[in-house]
Amino acid sequence: MSEKRTEIGSLGEFGLIDHLLKKASAKNTKTIHGPGDDAAVISNGEGNLIVSSDMLTEGIHFDLSYTPLMHLGYKAVAVNVSDIAAMNGTPRHILINLGVSNRFSVEALEVFYSGVYAACEDYNIDVIGGDTTSSASGLIISITVIGEVTAEQKTLRSGAKVGDILCVSGDLGGAYLGLQVLEREKEVFKSNPEMQPKLEGYDYIIQRQLKPKARMDVVHELRESGILPSSMIDISDGLASEILHLSKASQVAFRIYEENLPIDPTSYNTALEFKIDSASCMLNGGEDYELLFTIDKNDKDKIEKMDDVHMIGYVQPLSKGNELISKNQNVVPITAQGFKHFL
Amino acid sequence: MSEKRTEIGSLGEFGLIDHLLKKASAKNTKTIHGPGDDAAVISNGEGNLIVSSDMLTEGIHFDLSYTPLMHLGYKAVAVNVSDIAAMNGTPRHILINLGVSNRFSVEALEVFYSGVYAACEDYNIDVIGGDTTSSASGLIISITVIGEVTAEQKTLRSGAKVGDILCVSGDLGGAYLGLQVLEREKEVFKSNPEMQPKLEGYDYIIQRQLKPKARMDVVHELRESGILPSSMIDISDGLASEILHLSKASQVAFRIYEENLPIDPTSYNTALEFKIDSASCMLNGGEDYELLFTIDKNDKDKIEKMDDVHMIGYVQPLSKGNELISKNQNVVPITAQGFKHFL
Repeated sequence: MSEKRTEIGSLGEFGLIDHLLKKASAKNTKTIHGPGDDAAVISNGEGNLIVSSDMLTEGIHFDLSYTPLMHLGYKAVAVNVSDIAAMNGTPRHILINLGVSNRFSVEALEVFYSGVYAACEDYNIDVIGGDTTSSASGLIISITVIGEVTAEQKTLRSGAKVGDILCVSGDLGGAYLGLQVLEREKEVFKSNPEMQPKLEGYDYIIQRQLKPKARMDVVHELRESGILPSSMIDISDGLASEILHLSKASQVAFRIYEENLPIDPTSYNTALEFKIDSASCMLNGGEDYELLFTIDKNDKDKIEKMDDVHMIGYVQPLSKGNELISKNQNVVPITAQGFKHFL
Repeated sequence: MSEKRTEIGSLGEFGLIDHLLKKASAKNTKTIHGPGDDAAVISNGEGNLIVSSDMLTEGIHFDLSYTPLMHLGYKAVAVNVSDIAAMNGTPRHILINLGVSNRFSVEALEVFYSGVYAACEDYNIDVIGGDTTSSASGLIISITVIGEVTAEQKTLRSGAKVGDILCVSGDLGGAYLGLQVLEREKEVFKSNPEMQPKLEGYDYIIQRQLKPKARMDVVHELRESGILPSSMIDISDGLASEILHLSKASQVAFRIYEENLPIDPTSYNTALEFKIDSASCMLNGGEDYELLFTIDKNDKDKIEKMDDVHMIGYVQPLSKGNELISKNQNVVPITAQGFKHFL
């Protein structure tokens, strides 16, 4: 066989989907934005619908040996809601497709769904459909979330302008460090099942990993403060990776300051304990689901009043490149080291 | 462990999803119909959006040893479009999530997507998003399709009235018999890889299995003829199973006539060859993706002008039960023997 074979891993996750969807053309006038942002945008009578869809597979995205099914149900909804938040929209409806091997009982799926419903309650959304089917191995979760946004509020990745301020909500690196703790305890358990897992003191970061929140509160606070971000994305693959997405879509570059990056004390101490550079955790740790966005510099006073939003840098011309200014004033180019599920 | 464990298979596919979604409540005023029909319905400014989502898993829904990836891409789109057709709607947008093991090359996924794009061209829909991610084993396809329908045209499963005529498009049993041929040739190949598969003469039914069509042409013809079905469903799990869905949703029963059930000569001859009862193939064979619908009896003349639609029975009170009148005038109760993926 002389057929060409290109390994999926050689393109990377984003490269692969970009490659496969490059032929997607918009035949319908109601398709406003197709693939390429956190969610697609469809025109409807009153404003815009936003739609996003994600798949989570067992053994790749989650490990059921330390992930309670209820938390998994909650997280599966929250990470999709986060894509709607990243468009500055409001989530409304969700469809859930599950592929399930016969290792799972009806009771196990009920527990998963109790987490789904808890998240739907928190984010005020309706489960409107979905499919439950057999899978040859393990659990597969595919979720589609539909939200709304007005044409004025809609925020894409592509609107950042030179001079804008770059902001991030919450704190960074926690979900990644929570995962390190869970993985360590799993190894301990495998070598000696009698050992009790040592999770005390790590509550915050374990919660960040197992039950992240979509920052709809930040979306609402921005609206109440009269701030319309010029661009926005949610942090699923790590700050550095998301900065590069904004940079590419907006055709600008970013300068960020290490000393401004927000970290929780638990994350900081756990990084020390694991001998991992905390800046690296903040830059490359995935799954924080915080919002990363740019604002006009005239909105600086308003942003300063928002407790849980941090100004971490600003927008500069693309030609200057994306840079991190380290605590000792070194200029370090920002490169993507986001989560790589295709290895 | 004294925890209760109910096997998924004990509820069946429909029982399981009904059970899990029974707590789904409509918090948003824009949710018009949640789970329970071919698609969910959301109000928008101009009419109604209809949304449906399905998952197909390798080894359960398709066998790549005889399913070309291009056909699979086409079929994955068509079966979802069929759910929109069943609501009397028009498909507009699609999102495709793929879970892929590293057994697949980029080229293989390109072939899959070429089938997706061919179907999108045929049905005039846009790929607006999706996700491609790793799976621990095999190929998983999860598709969400979004369509539109006016409030007047919207057709649910629940509108059939006593006295209405039951109609079906196309012919029945072909996809099931095509599968039997493909499975037989697979066994022959496994026992002797030198053997060439004998597929000549079975083209029609193999096409029915591998590359079914969504009957958007029937939806358009109904509109042009001025016929608004009182209820509709697509035949994915077999005629008998779908009749029982309409019966339950509309709280009526159906009487159908074996002599009126449409079958293609290739299907009939293949059933004879395989020594399978052809009526059983028409009643219980899945994946024909024809439309099954009821019309007011005053529309009978209009339906008679539609070449590819067949009147197979009528609606009677629920108390009479769902019945098949066999060719020798026996009355046989209709029971579901639809596709059971949970075994």
